[in-house]
Amino acid sequence: MRHSFDPEFKGTTMLRTLTIAFALLAAPLPLAAQDDPLPSWNEGAAKTAILEFVAQTTAEGEASYVAPDDRLATFDQDGTLWVEQPLYGQGFFALDRLAKMAPDHPEWKDTEPFKSVLTGDHAAMAKFTEKDWMAIVAVTHAGMSTDDFETIVSDWLPTSKNPIFDAPVTELTYQPMHEVMDLLRTNGFQTWIVTGGGQEFVRAYANDVYGVPTQQVIGSSIATKYQMVDGKPVLMRDAKLFFNDNDDGKAIGINLFIGKRPQIAFGNTEGDKEMLQWTTAGDGLRLGFLLLHDDADREVAYGPANGLPDTKVGTFSEALMDSAEQNDWTVISMKNDWKTIFAKGVEKVK
Amino acid sequence: MRHSFDPEFKGTTMLRTLTIAFALLAAPLPLAAQDDPLPSWNEGAAKTAILEFVAQTTAEGEASYVAPDDRLATFDQDGTLWVEQPLYGQGFFALDRLAKMAPDHPEWKDTEPFKSVLTGDHAAMAKFTEKDWMAIVAVTHAGMSTDDFETIVSDWLPTSKNPIFDAPVTELTYQPMHEVMDLLRTNGFQTWIVTGGGQEFVRAYANDVYGVPTQQVIGSSIATKYQMVDGKPVLMRDAKLFFNDNDDGKAIGINLFIGKRPQIAFGNTEGDKEMLQWTTAGDGLRLGFLLLHDDADREVAYGPANGLPDTKVGTFSEALMDSAEQNDWTVISMKNDWKTIFAKGVEKVK
Repeated sequence: MRHSFDPEFKGTTMLRTLTIAFALLAAPLPLAAQDDPLPSWNEGAAKTAILEFVAQTTAEGEASYVAPDDRLATFDQDGTLWVEQPLYGQGFFALDRLAKMAPDHPEWKDTEPFKSVLTGDHAAMAKFTEKDWMAIVAVTHAGMSTDDFETIVSDWLPTSKNPIFDAPVTELTYQPMHEVMDLLRTNGFQTWIVTGGGQEFVRAYANDVYGVPTQQVIGSSIATKYQMVDGKPVLMRDAKLFFNDNDDGKAIGINLFIGKRPQIAFGNTEGDKEMLQWTTAGDGLRLGFLLLHDDADREVAYGPANGLPDTKVGTFSEALMDSAEQNDWTVISMKNDWKTIFAKGVEKVK
Repeated sequence: MRHSFDPEFKGTTMLRTLTIAFALLAAPLPLAAQDDPLPSWNEGAAKTAILEFVAQTTAEGEASYVAPDDRLATFDQDGTLWVEQPLYGQGFFALDRLAKMAPDHPEWKDTEPFKSVLTGDHAAMAKFTEKDWMAIVAVTHAGMSTDDFETIVSDWLPTSKNPIFDAPVTELTYQPMHEVMDLLRTNGFQTWIVTGGGQEFVRAYANDVYGVPTQQVIGSSIATKYQMVDGKPVLMRDAKLFFNDNDDGKAIGINLFIGKRPQIAFGNTEGDKEMLQWTTAGDGLRLGFLLLHDDADREVAYGPANGLPDTKVGTFSEALMDSAEQNDWTVISMKNDWKTIFAKGVEKVK
């Protein structure tokens, strides 16, 4: 048995080990070729554009470099981060809530738009006007405190069900978009959700589902009123639209809430056009992406860009496709660019 | 000459040195007793409350511990972070801007409220109604793009002058409040400005002056309109109030922009009462602070709490003092609690 050892060897080994440990602490881990940060993406123009964007905006000394304070990325939610067919997640919430409240409102049996909802008259519901939907929002989303609304939404989420996938709405998020958000955050970008949906609705789950804190969720909102109840302040939700975060509202909302232009933005419909215009009109390297739902097998194919079926929910028109071409926005094909669709491995049941 | 060495000793020393280096990298540097993070504060209840708040909210395992994501601090600006006498900084901007624009508006010579401003009729200006001020805001703050407005404000700031101190408005920030913001940020708190002043006005300098990025500035705002000009999108500022971030607006604004309650809030007037109520009604350890301007020698003494003179700008009423007592908010006495007032060492000239 040999008890002696070579001190030179011991010192060298220790030093080498610790030097590597220091390097790992001091600098982000360099990616080995096999460590693909976007494993759910097929090789192609969209994946390359995202990876090059990250490399170029974080390369100090380059003209394309973006200071950490200005690293801002914005994401539409419905149809961009999660499924929006056959109805927005918040639409399911409104309908479920209406059904739950119906016993206390017998008059709804004979009053539109409630009657059509409660009898499941989908043909009538498909023709609902904005006024009809606002009447539904008024009774399902207003008249309670902001704290109570958050509880109502949080309690509903695990009971929610999307009939196409027979799964709760929160399980219908896109794995490739999670990877993009993670990659951007790892590289110092703040990820913001800019949704036409209700700001407080989305905030109820944005942190758990997307890792986006409440203060990085911009959405449509109704007015709130400050009231003292039993000596404690509450904010009561009022049935009055305060801010419409769609179309030009997305650019206005980004300016209102962030005060700076994003460097990169992701959307999927006409309602995201102004967000992409506002983003990509900025100086330096700015990218816009539009997700095309062209995968009828794994998700739902709708458009009507590229001859896909027109739906009332989520419109990717030919005109939007033209805008994408004119502005050099990248169109992501769900069918071709995404290896995996869902973070939770759900599958279509009908 | 001795070439041999003790391998045990060498290894031990290296290991000890590197262990310390690792510990420093892994944990924040512990403060030695002499490293007072609030050197401009005299010992007293206010300083103790702030230091204990930071210790208690960051002590893992304690009931008072606050998760990093929820560490939010809000600060009023005028009269809390910088001087608000004899007029809000933004008031000086509006008056200077009006004077600069006057040659192109000869009709203002005979039209109120412009006439009183241009002739320097301070007696008439002291009686201006909200409608008068809105007329001034309409011509000085609207009708240009958001980008142009930012340039106008940025260009004006170094030329601005507060007559009491003969200094630009940006030099009139309070050193003790800078120290509080730094201390909170060092301990993982997001510092937000919640101002009754114009959101875009404050954003033009908030990062340079306070280290607060644009997306952490909540303020009053006017509506903006999305327009395409020469093929590029711009947001035009419209002479229409969109959000009034005063009084109950501060609680509403905090909910709208942040979506969570702050843990700690600082204000100085009636207009901050609801922000402090909303903050301190939350669960766990929540603190509210009100700055009392009681130092006539170094700044301006006004109130009328504690019998100080009543002014039209910044009201700390007896009723607000009563609220502070009922709610256990801490009143900061500028005279007694602050060793140093100004970050830039400015002094009164009149």
